[in-house]
Amino acid sequence: MFKILRVNMADQSVKFEDIADEYQGLGGRGITSAIVAREVEPTCNALGPLNKLVFAPGLLGGTSAANSGRISVGGKSPLTGGIKESNSGGQAGQYLAKLGIQAIVLEGDPPAGKLFKLVVAKDEAKLLPADDLKGLGNYDTVAKLVDEYGDKMGFASIGQAGEFLLPAASVAFTDRELRPTRHSGRGGLGAVMGSKGVKAIIFDPSGGQSAPLKDPDAFKEAAKRFAKGLAEHPVTSEGLANYGTDILINILNEAGGLPTRNFSSGQFEGAEKVAGETLNQITAERKGTIKHGCMSGCVIRCSGIFLGPDGQYISKWPEYETVWAWGPNCGIDDLDAIARIDRMCDDFGIDTIEVGCAMAVAMEGGLLSFGDAAGAEKLVAEVGQGTPLGRILASGTATTGRVFGVKRVPTVKGQSMPAYDPRAVKGVGVTYATTPMGADHTAGYAVASNILKVGGATDPLVAEGQAALSQAFQVATAAIDSAGLCLFIAFAVLDIPDANQAVVDMINAKFGWSWTGDDYGAMGQKVLKIERDFNQRAGFNQGDDRLPDFFLREKLPPHDVVFDVSNEDLDSVFDF
Amino acid sequence: MFKILRVNMADQSVKFEDIADEYQGLGGRGITSAIVAREVEPTCNALGPLNKLVFAPGLLGGTSAANSGRISVGGKSPLTGGIKESNSGGQAGQYLAKLGIQAIVLEGDPPAGKLFKLVVAKDEAKLLPADDLKGLGNYDTVAKLVDEYGDKMGFASIGQAGEFLLPAASVAFTDRELRPTRHSGRGGLGAVMGSKGVKAIIFDPSGGQSAPLKDPDAFKEAAKRFAKGLAEHPVTSEGLANYGTDILINILNEAGGLPTRNFSSGQFEGAEKVAGETLNQITAERKGTIKHGCMSGCVIRCSGIFLGPDGQYISKWPEYETVWAWGPNCGIDDLDAIARIDRMCDDFGIDTIEVGCAMAVAMEGGLLSFGDAAGAEKLVAEVGQGTPLGRILASGTATTGRVFGVKRVPTVKGQSMPAYDPRAVKGVGVTYATTPMGADHTAGYAVASNILKVGGATDPLVAEGQAALSQAFQVATAAIDSAGLCLFIAFAVLDIPDANQAVVDMINAKFGWSWTGDDYGAMGQKVLKIERDFNQRAGFNQGDDRLPDFFLREKLPPHDVVFDVSNEDLDSVFDF
Repeated sequence: MFKILRVNMADQSVKFEDIADEYQGLGGRGITSAIVAREVEPTCNALGPLNKLVFAPGLLGGTSAANSGRISVGGKSPLTGGIKESNSGGQAGQYLAKLGIQAIVLEGDPPAGKLFKLVVAKDEAKLLPADDLKGLGNYDTVAKLVDEYGDKMGFASIGQAGEFLLPAASVAFTDRELRPTRHSGRGGLGAVMGSKGVKAIIFDPSGGQSAPLKDPDAFKEAAKRFAKGLAEHPVTSEGLANYGTDILINILNEAGGLPTRNFSSGQFEGAEKVAGETLNQITAERKGTIKHGCMSGCVIRCSGIFLGPDGQYISKWPEYETVWAWGPNCGIDDLDAIARIDRMCDDFGIDTIEVGCAMAVAMEGGLLSFGDAAGAEKLVAEVGQGTPLGRILASGTATTGRVFGVKRVPTVKGQSMPAYDPRAVKGVGVTYATTPMGADHTAGYAVASNILKVGGATDPLVAEGQAALSQAFQVATAAIDSAGLCLFIAFAVLDIPDANQAVVDMINAKFGWSWTGDDYGAMGQKVLKIERDFNQRAGFNQGDDRLPDFFLREKLPPHDVVFDVSNEDLDSVFDF
Repeated sequence: MFKILRVNMADQSVKFEDIADEYQGLGGRGITSAIVAREVEPTCNALGPLNKLVFAPGLLGGTSAANSGRISVGGKSPLTGGIKESNSGGQAGQYLAKLGIQAIVLEGDPPAGKLFKLVVAKDEAKLLPADDLKGLGNYDTVAKLVDEYGDKMGFASIGQAGEFLLPAASVAFTDRELRPTRHSGRGGLGAVMGSKGVKAIIFDPSGGQSAPLKDPDAFKEAAKRFAKGLAEHPVTSEGLANYGTDILINILNEAGGLPTRNFSSGQFEGAEKVAGETLNQITAERKGTIKHGCMSGCVIRCSGIFLGPDGQYISKWPEYETVWAWGPNCGIDDLDAIARIDRMCDDFGIDTIEVGCAMAVAMEGGLLSFGDAAGAEKLVAEVGQGTPLGRILASGTATTGRVFGVKRVPTVKGQSMPAYDPRAVKGVGVTYATTPMGADHTAGYAVASNILKVGGATDPLVAEGQAALSQAFQVATAAIDSAGLCLFIAFAVLDIPDANQAVVDMINAKFGWSWTGDDYGAMGQKVLKIERDFNQRAGFNQGDDRLPDFFLREKLPPHDVVFDVSNEDLDSVFDF
């Protein structure tokens, strides 16, 4: 029987409760957004007692479905002021599901200055003092927790940025090797965790069991078809495994959509040096790991291990968006420097996109020069120290732009844009503008169709049709995020209809439902409606669904294009 | 014939144009808001080429009406993201009106890194390079301009904060003695001026003439009745002259509504030491000036001159809100320190309310201790130097709260609250929540009725009726701001019906209209509607018309009250 675990920080009480009717049948982003929308006052201070932080495995969590172990984290975002769901790999999602917990809800204000850790085990949860972890980065935090709890656990934690309550703070999750390299990065949910006084969560999987299935045979059959789809598609079988998500550097550079030096060009002369092909080569040379999955049950295995020239572990393979944020976007072409920065970001617990974008904005503001890798490393280190400069950067791109008087600040709803220029990849530009999450590629990855020609090809440079495309991707994504599946499965399911049907079949077999593909899509629509309604109550309207005006005025080389999707088209995305 | 002066910074062209039909009959806030609402894309970057900065005298500007020389400055605010009008005393309003200029509109983006000064004279305007003024504070800027242009001019300028494009930057105007002590302080319009590359405006009044009057005799008669009202009311005749606006310290402290240590108490144990009575006494002892008007035609004369212990000029009398922001709100009880900080704020060109509030928030965040006057002075000095810390503070209270991870941040729409706790003065709390300007006392000074019992007494602690009260004040204020009258005349016109009628009579006599009091009020309503519509298009809705939730939860000593005006009441304020 699945439960909700409520943790009240005001009195440090911990209780398991039955899942209320209104949350029945929801998972992942579906349940985090439902709880936040229903229980959090939309106009509240995101760092105050009225906000809640929700952790939830997806509908397929705890099963043998490939790549079904994502964990959703939700709350009101201190970065955007709107609702936020940011999901992560690592082990926590599967462990939570196998413990029969559909959601953990952290609520209330903790006693001032106190830190806690939450231990979640089979039918039991404890909130314990954790003042000894104060000021530690995620790596040291996990090391201390492993000393205490052993290496059979999963861990979630915040670094210094979360303790400082900074709006770019992430929540870190450990991978299978207990490295805190998987993050719910976007939207500052690490600061919400910090505001609750929770430094870490320990997931003890012992005694856990696979999620019950209404029709085990049907599930097994569908899971097999699903895995077959992933194994057959070139992106999910080979591309991501060999080159990581960084495979996209050369592709976006070729397409003229790789934002360079704070979105002033769509091509970077140093792209090759930071591309996935180079990452693969360096990793092979240094005997790092290629084809590494970040969570049990992953068959895509995009998260390689990056070693330094001395063969010592630096970090997991930096994601494409990380390489972009600190590479092309800062004019930096040094993969080693980027990997070291990625390691620091993981350790301090900050979103690599948000803070990398902030660094580029600071470069434009004259704080340091584009291309100054050493300068960037030095400044990132200041985040962990909590200096004024470090705090500015970890407050995000909008704040950094404000403090340094920068006019070109690539944010929507206060969140920085990721690694696809909306002028040259217009479908994702529509997603940036309209998703309730603030600028976010994962919320509606129209890049797949615009650039990768997955699920049908569309012209990235033409305005027409992008709104409908983004809508379709946003709906599908909300469903995938609710299922608890890694978003990368989308490459396969978009091209292989039976793989998509297999997802629906797995859900049906698990719950004894008889959903059609339309019902699955309807779940995505429902999640989006809930999120948009929350944002409307929080103070957002269509005026917030706009890109910064420089994207409408400044032509992006090499295509010399502006973002010209009409406001009417943008406002049509939620017409469903 | 009145004209609009348009200055295009992109090509540095300057032209006088006839007033378009849609701007006819508008003045002050009425015309700045009309131009901004009509000509500025609401979702644009406030520091980019699509924003405009408008300067305008009021409808009664250029006449002999007492206290009619206010100048309105309007634009999209880089602090709030909404529309902004912030008006100021000093000489510029009267000079502009006497030159026959109804509005100056600065538009377009200047060449990067260049600074200009605008010289406005009779039927002539010139835009000239001003790179020699780069980096200067307002005092040095004006000194250099006086050297060049003589002492018969009026000056508007920005200090370092405006050049840095910081969201708390003000526009300074010189008083009759050519001191840059009068400011359009709120909402960061100094940063907009900086973004236009305009360091200063020189107003040359030579050849100017009084505004033409349709019925000079009727005007004279009405102006006399108006002046009589001001002379008869104790606040406008004696109170403000003898004690400055700082007279309010003891009154608000007595009422339990003086926000202390970042809005954690309504009374300050050191109030007496920073009160207007003390200010008067110190000024008398040091032979400073009491009863000093900041602009020609002022009969209220609240802006005394503050001297140091050595008899040397420090600053004008700090306003009540300035004394509060840096005094009780920071736990500081040292008037000399406050006056020195006020001088620095005037020099760097920053809003004393916004940055004082930011300092208190930084104190709560642990940057320094409440009461540390020397520490605060040192940090304010960093604004002029453009250090990271100085930039954070001059980015305003919301940014400072964000960077230092503070949960109690007293802002609405990103603008800091002034010197009246909304829990103990609920009428002004409604104004904070609902005015299109962001938290602002001047937008609807319900304090007059709640606390001063002017224009009828209302209970400040009772929620009922405050929405209607705030509405009435907001409407009246928008009318007064459009007339170009100093808001302090409101004390007299609220209590003396004939003084209010005299304002309407003066407008009628000047323009040949036959307005009733209702027509005058309708003008105020129209201005508010225009502003609210702009904000709606910029992305605001009712969710933005809320106070930070701590005001609804934390009881304010000594009355132990929360802000309990209902959302329904707040949402009724614009029902007209």
